Amino acid sequence: MPGLFLGSQYKKIMRMTMRSVMRKISVGLAKESKRYLSSAMTRGPNTWKDNQSSQILLSPPLVSLDIPEIWASDSNYYDHPSSWKNSNAQIATIIDGKSIAEEIRSRVASEVKRMKEYVGQVPGLAVILVGQRRDSQTYVRNKIKACEEAGIKSVLVELPNSCAEYDVMTSVLNFNEDPSIHGILVQLPLPEHLDEEKILSVLSLEKDVDGFHPLNMGNLAMRGREPLFIPCTPKGCIELLIRSGVEIMGKKAVVVGRSNIVGLPISLLLQRYHATVSIVHACTKNPEQITREADIVVTAAGVPNLIRSNWLKPGAVVIDVGTCPIEDPSAEYGYGLVGDVCFEEALRVASAVTPVPGGVGPMTIAMLLCNTLDSAKRLHGFS
Amino acid sequence: MPGLFLGSQYKKIMRMTMRSVMRKISVGLAKESKRYLSSAMTRGPNTWKDNQSSQILLSPPLVSLDIPEIWASDSNYYDHPSSWKNSNAQIATIIDGKSIAEEIRSRVASEVKRMKEYVGQVPGLAVILVGQRRDSQTYVRNKIKACEEAGIKSVLVELPNSCAEYDVMTSVLNFNEDPSIHGILVQLPLPEHLDEEKILSVLSLEKDVDGFHPLNMGNLAMRGREPLFIPCTPKGCIELLIRSGVEIMGKKAVVVGRSNIVGLPISLLLQRYHATVSIVHACTKNPEQITREADIVVTAAGVPNLIRSNWLKPGAVVIDVGTCPIEDPSAEYGYGLVGDVCFEEALRVASAVTPVPGGVGPMTIAMLLCNTLDSAKRLHGFS
Repeated sequence: MPGLFLGSQYKKIMRMTMRSVMRKISVGLAKESKRYLSSAMTRGPNTWKDNQSSQILLSPPLVSLDIPEIWASDSNYYDHPSSWKNSNAQIATIIDGKSIAEEIRSRVASEVKRMKEYVGQVPGLAVILVGQRRDSQTYVRNKIKACEEAGIKSVLVELPNSCAEYDVMTSVLNFNEDPSIHGILVQLPLPEHLDEEKILSVLSLEKDVDGFHPLNMGNLAMRGREPLFIPCTPKGCIELLIRSGVEIMGKKAVVVGRSNIVGLPISLLLQRYHATVSIVHACTKNPEQITREADIVVTAAGVPNLIRSNWLKPGAVVIDVGTCPIEDPSAEYGYGLVGDVCFEEALRVASAVTPVPGGVGPMTIAMLLCNTLDSAKRLHGFS
Repeated sequence: MPGLFLGSQYKKIMRMTMRSVMRKISVGLAKESKRYLSSAMTRGPNTWKDNQSSQILLSPPLVSLDIPEIWASDSNYYDHPSSWKNSNAQIATIIDGKSIAEEIRSRVASEVKRMKEYVGQVPGLAVILVGQRRDSQTYVRNKIKACEEAGIKSVLVELPNSCAEYDVMTSVLNFNEDPSIHGILVQLPLPEHLDEEKILSVLSLEKDVDGFHPLNMGNLAMRGREPLFIPCTPKGCIELLIRSGVEIMGKKAVVVGRSNIVGLPISLLLQRYHATVSIVHACTKNPEQITREADIVVTAAGVPNLIRSNWLKPGAVVIDVGTCPIEDPSAEYGYGLVGDVCFEEALRVASAVTPVPGGVGPMTIAMLLCNTLDSAKRLHGFS
């Protein structure tokens, strides 16, 4: 990813990273965790390609990030606001989620090939789509296509909008028993008459590649524990930050939105990476004031253009998870997607920003492939 | 609780509450949720006694708090900093956790009596204590005593520090099967050689009155879901806030500390009550700056005197969960407890503050009794 960071910005981030790491050492962080943290979180954007092992992502196991809670007696250290200046020129780097996702998908494809050679089987993903929401149809189509390209077997079950809970649950239960299926995905949202909680509760935990089960969520939240699967979109956001050389530990992060499937898990995940996290939601007073304090903004409100330039601190890193479908007769399927962030304004204030489309979206799909591959590896004892 | 709020402060809070509620109505909150919210969260400190039903706590079911995420287009409303002035005089009300807990315990005792009459059985709590930590011994002694006073049956198993995981797990499994036991509590922390996660994982979810199971934590975190048990200390903090007439919705709350048993669940719980939550921890830069923005500060760092007056916004409500044992030859058992908050300083800045001891501690025990009673009611189908 050459050119992802302007030279001086990158140096500055690395300098701040090193300073922060040295500080942490001085207050006595556990050696083991520090090793993981410094290797995972201060690695520059270009070094990950050097890793020739079967490891695809840079994100380490969550428990390896756990460090003892040691409060420094001197809490007055402070990085003064950076020298970023607001101007009319674009100063932000555009984080190219599409190309990062492609790299990951090509590594997944290699691993799938290796698994086929050694185990004689490929990972399998089952997708259950209920109803005819256009956006859901597009997401599912893209997921199936990505599976095909990576050599992952995919099975799609399409059920009518009018189907009963029983029908969806029967599909899920069949896939639970199917040894060729390692991941099951029920495309959300479901039609209103179906009880999402009830349906997801029968999904085998070992195949819950979306990571939406409350047990998974609890393990994501709790220090010392590791969820079987990290939800795809939050996992993709973290991978984007790490691969863009953004330090997370000790940074102020604001998550805009608190949905069960994005806002909540991303806030829990950022905290496992030792960011200082604030969650802004529809009941928050003066949300722009809180968001303006953040070094990292992850927004998943689903409100087009919610995040204007006055919501952003100069130099902030902005990850836009919002995907709001809007009519666009010129687009292939008659509609396009817009994010939460006023992209043109963010370009003039932030240091890095993800576009919509082409930012988080492709990463979500890449992470789904990773989770399906991991699940297959785990179920076959292959590493 | 006469005198819990100075008259003018109380009127101010009620005025702000009403203003906020009116705003929420105008952006279209769901009627059902609003009904719960307004009844549970804007109720004055003296009205709860009027409730003559079997309901003991004011905290409503969590799912009843869930409201649609509607982002107001005008986000510029803002309550200007209050007119609190810092001075040398005490302006804060001391939140009397001890007397609130006593009220709750006496209502639990009535319910236990009623249950005995109708079901012929009382709730039963099993406590497993490993090793000889003085603070753990005190906590356990207090819990057993509180059970006795409320008419709840209690069974204490004391195991030596050197015991094996197998011994603890056998105790837990026996209580899982015992129909006279409705709550099982393994006093934490366990000696280092024991795997806490492994031991707690065998504890029956229906008897996990501490609420520390990751499935419980996931259900606490996720909107639309209800955990079987809310962990006792966070539940006690919320009850203190509600009974003190403190509005939570829309307020800035800072949780200091992120332990699995206090910091994490209290942050999740405050969010279910629609506070804007930030979590400050040992890796946070300039924690006092973030905490100083908060309307509600809940601190559970375990660092005596961490929270000085410059950490607090004038008029903030401060809940001190910190309990650090310190040597005190004059005390009954040779030591006393101090909190995270510099109490004398907080009294001059905050609007309300909990003391240590006598604040959150007694509430934790009261909530344990509530959880045990609820569990027994659920298991016997008694309401």
